[in-house]
Amino acid sequence: MTIHVGIIGTGFIGEDHGRKLVNTINGSAVSAVSDINLGRATEVARLLGGARIFDDGHELIRSPEVDAVLVTSTGPTHSEFVLSSIDAGKPVMCEKPLAPTTPECEEILKAEVAFGRRLVIVGYMRRYDAGYRAVKGALESGAIGDALVLHNVHRNATVGEAYTSFMTMTDSMIHEVDTTRWLLGEEITSVQVIPPKRTPKAYPHLQDPQFAAFTTESGVLSTVEFFANCQYGYDVRCELVGSIGTASMVNPTVASTIAARTLAERIPADWRERFGAAYTAELQAWITGLQHGECVGPSAWEGYAATKVVEVGVEAVKSGQRMKIEYVEKPALYR
Amino acid sequence: MTIHVGIIGTGFIGEDHGRKLVNTINGSAVSAVSDINLGRATEVARLLGGARIFDDGHELIRSPEVDAVLVTSTGPTHSEFVLSSIDAGKPVMCEKPLAPTTPECEEILKAEVAFGRRLVIVGYMRRYDAGYRAVKGALESGAIGDALVLHNVHRNATVGEAYTSFMTMTDSMIHEVDTTRWLLGEEITSVQVIPPKRTPKAYPHLQDPQFAAFTTESGVLSTVEFFANCQYGYDVRCELVGSIGTASMVNPTVASTIAARTLAERIPADWRERFGAAYTAELQAWITGLQHGECVGPSAWEGYAATKVVEVGVEAVKSGQRMKIEYVEKPALYR
Amino acid sequence: MTIHVGIIGTGFIGEDHGRKLVNTINGSAVSAVSDINLGRATEVARLLGGARIFDDGHELIRSPEVDAVLVTSTGPTHSEFVLSSIDAGKPVMCEKPLAPTTPECEEILKAEVAFGRRLVIVGYMRRYDAGYRAVKGALESGAIGDALVLHNVHRNATVGEAYTSFMTMTDSMIHEVDTTRWLLGEEITSVQVIPPKRTPKAYPHLQDPQFAAFTTESGVLSTVEFFANCQYGYDVRCELVGSIGTASMVNPTVASTIAARTLAERIPADWRERFGAAYTAELQAWITGLQHGECVGPSAWEGYAATKVVEVGVEAVKSGQRMKIEYVEKPALYR
Amino acid sequence: MTIHVGIIGTGFIGEDHGRKLVNTINGSAVSAVSDINLGRATEVARLLGGARIFDDGHELIRSPEVDAVLVTSTGPTHSEFVLSSIDAGKPVMCEKPLAPTTPECEEILKAEVAFGRRLVIVGYMRRYDAGYRAVKGALESGAIGDALVLHNVHRNATVGEAYTSFMTMTDSMIHEVDTTRWLLGEEITSVQVIPPKRTPKAYPHLQDPQFAAFTTESGVLSTVEFFANCQYGYDVRCELVGSIGTASMVNPTVASTIAARTLAERIPADWRERFGAAYTAELQAWITGLQHGECVGPSAWEGYAATKVVEVGVEAVKSGQRMKIEYVEKPALYR
Repeated sequence: MTIHVGIIGTGFIGEDHGRKLVNTINGSAVSAVSDINLGRATEVARLLGGARIFDDGHELIRSPEVDAVLVTSTGPTHSEFVLSSIDAGKPVMCEKPLAPTTPECEEILKAEVAFGRRLVIVGYMRRYDAGYRAVKGALESGAIGDALVLHNVHRNATVGEAYTSFMTMTDSMIHEVDTTRWLLGEEITSVQVIPPKRTPKAYPHLQDPQFAAFTTESGVLSTVEFFANCQYGYDVRCELVGSIGTASMVNPTVASTIAARTLAERIPADWRERFGAAYTAELQAWITGLQHGECVGPSAWEGYAATKVVEVGVEAVKSGQRMKIEYVEKPALYR
Repeated sequence: MTIHVGIIGTGFIGEDHGRKLVNTINGSAVSAVSDINLGRATEVARLLGGARIFDDGHELIRSPEVDAVLVTSTGPTHSEFVLSSIDAGKPVMCEKPLAPTTPECEEILKAEVAFGRRLVIVGYMRRYDAGYRAVKGALESGAIGDALVLHNVHRNATVGEAYTSFMTMTDSMIHEVDTTRWLLGEEITSVQVIPPKRTPKAYPHLQDPQFAAFTTESGVLSTVEFFANCQYGYDVRCELVGSIGTASMVNPTVASTIAARTLAERIPADWRERFGAAYTAELQAWITGLQHGECVGPSAWEGYAATKVVEVGVEAVKSGQRMKIEYVEKPALYR
Repeated sequence: MTIHVGIIGTGFIGEDHGRKLVNTINGSAVSAVSDINLGRATEVARLLGGARIFDDGHELIRSPEVDAVLVTSTGPTHSEFVLSSIDAGKPVMCEKPLAPTTPECEEILKAEVAFGRRLVIVGYMRRYDAGYRAVKGALESGAIGDALVLHNVHRNATVGEAYTSFMTMTDSMIHEVDTTRWLLGEEITSVQVIPPKRTPKAYPHLQDPQFAAFTTESGVLSTVEFFANCQYGYDVRCELVGSIGTASMVNPTVASTIAARTLAERIPADWRERFGAAYTAELQAWITGLQHGECVGPSAWEGYAATKVVEVGVEAVKSGQRMKIEYVEKPALYR
Repeated sequence: MTIHVGIIGTGFIGEDHGRKLVNTINGSAVSAVSDINLGRATEVARLLGGARIFDDGHELIRSPEVDAVLVTSTGPTHSEFVLSSIDAGKPVMCEKPLAPTTPECEEILKAEVAFGRRLVIVGYMRRYDAGYRAVKGALESGAIGDALVLHNVHRNATVGEAYTSFMTMTDSMIHEVDTTRWLLGEEITSVQVIPPKRTPKAYPHLQDPQFAAFTTESGVLSTVEFFANCQYGYDVRCELVGSIGTASMVNPTVASTIAARTLAERIPADWRERFGAAYTAELQAWITGLQHGECVGPSAWEGYAATKVVEVGVEAVKSGQRMKIEYVEKPALYR
């Protein structure tokens, strides 16, 4: 059974996911695309082998040619398309964040709860990365004891001028927020931001690198160093420190070279090189789930919780103080 | 366009490939299966979601429901099914070896040359492994200079009693024979076997570990330590030594743990864990090629050359002497 | 020229240093020992091949048989013996801390300044570790750009019941305080402590692990995770993040083993295994310096500054707030 | 008790050892030097702080100012000075080889046996390297089972024109001959040489790299790739393959850097960087042993055996055939 996906938002990430659904994923096709830029939508439809073009995302969602919706439009438009998908009773995968604000996220939670079963997944692809899964596996096996501290490093080669200090939280550390919650299986309850010395390589308006200390319900400390302009490549690592041992995710390595007195291993260039396989696994899990009538992937609650944390995180960037984080009650649908 | 594959031989590897074609590969379906064991064929047909069962492989090949043939039957039956596929003008992927003897391989070369274009690929999946590709990339980039020596290690946890000393060459080192040829882009011209001390963990009839020294047309030395019963896991490595540097394939690593005074990284359990992704990539490349009317994968010549080397290799096991290897003329089709 | 050292305090560390001075260091001898426990002093004197035993440390200092003094007595006694050495005009190496309180340290600074040239060094041996030196070398070479963030990990297998939460600062993180200052070449100006979840393996009175965030004059953030009861071994690491690259100290590795599906590298058991060579190098540098009439090693100012930081650090443990750190004016002698 | 060493041969290695004996080793002094080049001897005597200069090595040996002799003159002169030391009843450390020919070595064995106790040690410093010792420790602990195969890599940046193909055996692989014997605790009984493709970076007369396959009494295969002009640095590694696991010596690593998309670890520049600490440990063990009246270090038998193997090895370079190696009976003194 082929799942026919309609894509709303044919920017870079929408095209990339579309190509995977057409060329790599087993069991999917792309039947429809939509974008505010019609020319772009037309080009991507052609690249994907002839999907139908919709002027309006809501029309796409309602089309009988669309079995499932992929929302890869800009963040502020996420909630309307997710809500529209729920309204149509269609499965929807929304790229992170579920929505930029918690009221929008809460509206989605309510709509899905009202619908009565899960339709929504959010694109936190790191959960499908082999390295993160190995760390989670080590914790669950008991090999490292109880989780106590989690150290995260998230470095990116360069960002453009449009990237702001708040985005370090809402666009970047949101990934560590999700992996922290997922690895530890508990909510984050406070956050403090401690700005390090600024790199001369960033635009003057940007606090870069940035450092945050999150704590969870049980008291685990999760530190995050995010560095938007580290220059040298894309470098994501974590170490989970337990009561009898630790587990570390390392940059995936398959080869090394030696020359000129140096043993060298490659650091990924960007997130596509580093997490390409995780994106594929995430999409395949979603499609295979749909073929079996299941909704596989991070839930709308996960999307809400991550947005909540970074919303408070932005306040923490402003205040420099430790900020508490409180959540709406978790609906039974997500327990 | 979906490529409908017929599988001849539904043993372990046939089933594994079949599952990938049905569940993982984009663009393929399994339309037919055949096996000398009808019960097994029936079971696998069911596992694969209802492929048609053929009593006879040749009938399967001729069936209009079959676009492409996958030969995963026992080695001695490979050539008849490959020849039959060529006769039917259908693309065929044959698991290694192309055939156990060079006369059979030569007959396939003649048939394919007579047909006039390539139909046959041979399942040397290591060429699709990220580690081997990185080593080849390092050589081709010029980063390590001219290739001079290649060191190969190939270790397997345990083998059964049926595994013989000749099979170290025909079943196991044949992989290094292929990767040596592929990495260096030249033929192997001699082989010598130097037996090390035997492990107490092997059956008494087996020389284990085994060591071979191959040389190529230009004089590169390619050493292979093969160890069938190393006990500890599945461990395949190589180092290509060039005139200004070296490139090494390492066991793929994504995480490590520390406990009890030890930093630990996992060694793969078996070839499925280690080369699962390479098998997938090989099958996807084949299927995607067929969708575009191309024959993508190691050619019948590559299959012939590997069989030729290990055929002489078996003589080298017996004699302990350096044995020269000579080939039939390479047809233009394979240049 | 042999430097005859008198050792005050023949506990574990005094004996260890004494053995090095007698058996490993080139150019030194141990001529005298003193301890509040006369029996212990007698035993160590015998182990070291017959040093003279003094009842009183001050007498030892004044003895014409003593060229240089090594103070390895308990922390609260450090300042009196260091002052007495300055009074006698004799070179003195004091194990860390220089003194447990800043008034004591300031008294030493004044005395040494009054004497007019440097006599005092403090035993911050990590400065002599090959790994730390490589990190400092990477910074100084320009290879990683400007220093922005320093991440430190300091883990110890187990501690006894006498070890308190304040000692995480005064006994343990004091090492990272010193290496931060030394690596970056600037003073620490603030500290905040953020307690993680407690391990069930520690005594109930102990906050373990502990986390601190130090900042320096130029704004560099230096984080320290200290874990007194990590169970698995002794594990000290740091990563210095610069504007164009990073430098990491790793556990020294000379070999690995593979067995039972695991590649294993050894983690040191304790500080003697990890930093034994650094202690030797520190002592040799001191002795060789004395042979040439020089005072080689971390100065009394370095000792004062470290004590100052951890004194405020203890307040930070209590308050949970970011605490500022201010210093007396740096005398010309130490510039 | 200070051991006063007389050095015969003040070339590069003699000076280096002399500096260690004067500045680094505990318990030694250099009282005398001798060299065929008197100017050079004079210069080194000055560098070492004023050793007495002897025109004639034999006179030096007989001098009452000399407690122990260090022979670092050219290989062909080794045996006369070692014999002269035995004649004088003085301990002697001879740089490898003990002598370039087996008749000379046998004469030394006879002389030492006649003297009745051990006086001679040979400078195979790798036995004091932490990496090699860890490999030996892994074998002795039982962690890797029975030794079956040993893979050795020995690479050097560049050599001068005077370096010949025979010297790959007599000067370079002689180190692996010794470590093979020492790690495995048995004699080498055959050797075959298999020349790889030559590097364009060597002088035309030199076979470089070179490959040899040694076998031992019990059948262990020890392979050696030696590469004199690998260009990239000094790189010595080994992997000992046992029946249930393996142990590998890796390049000692204490730090790594990341920049420009590359994680980099340093490869040593030369043998002084790589084995400097082993040379120090070897000299210290010898001196400390002498202080206790013991002769600590590889014996004259070890020197003889290594010379024997490489003498046959040179024949193997010429013949390309597997050559057997037979020894004189091992005197009781060395058992």
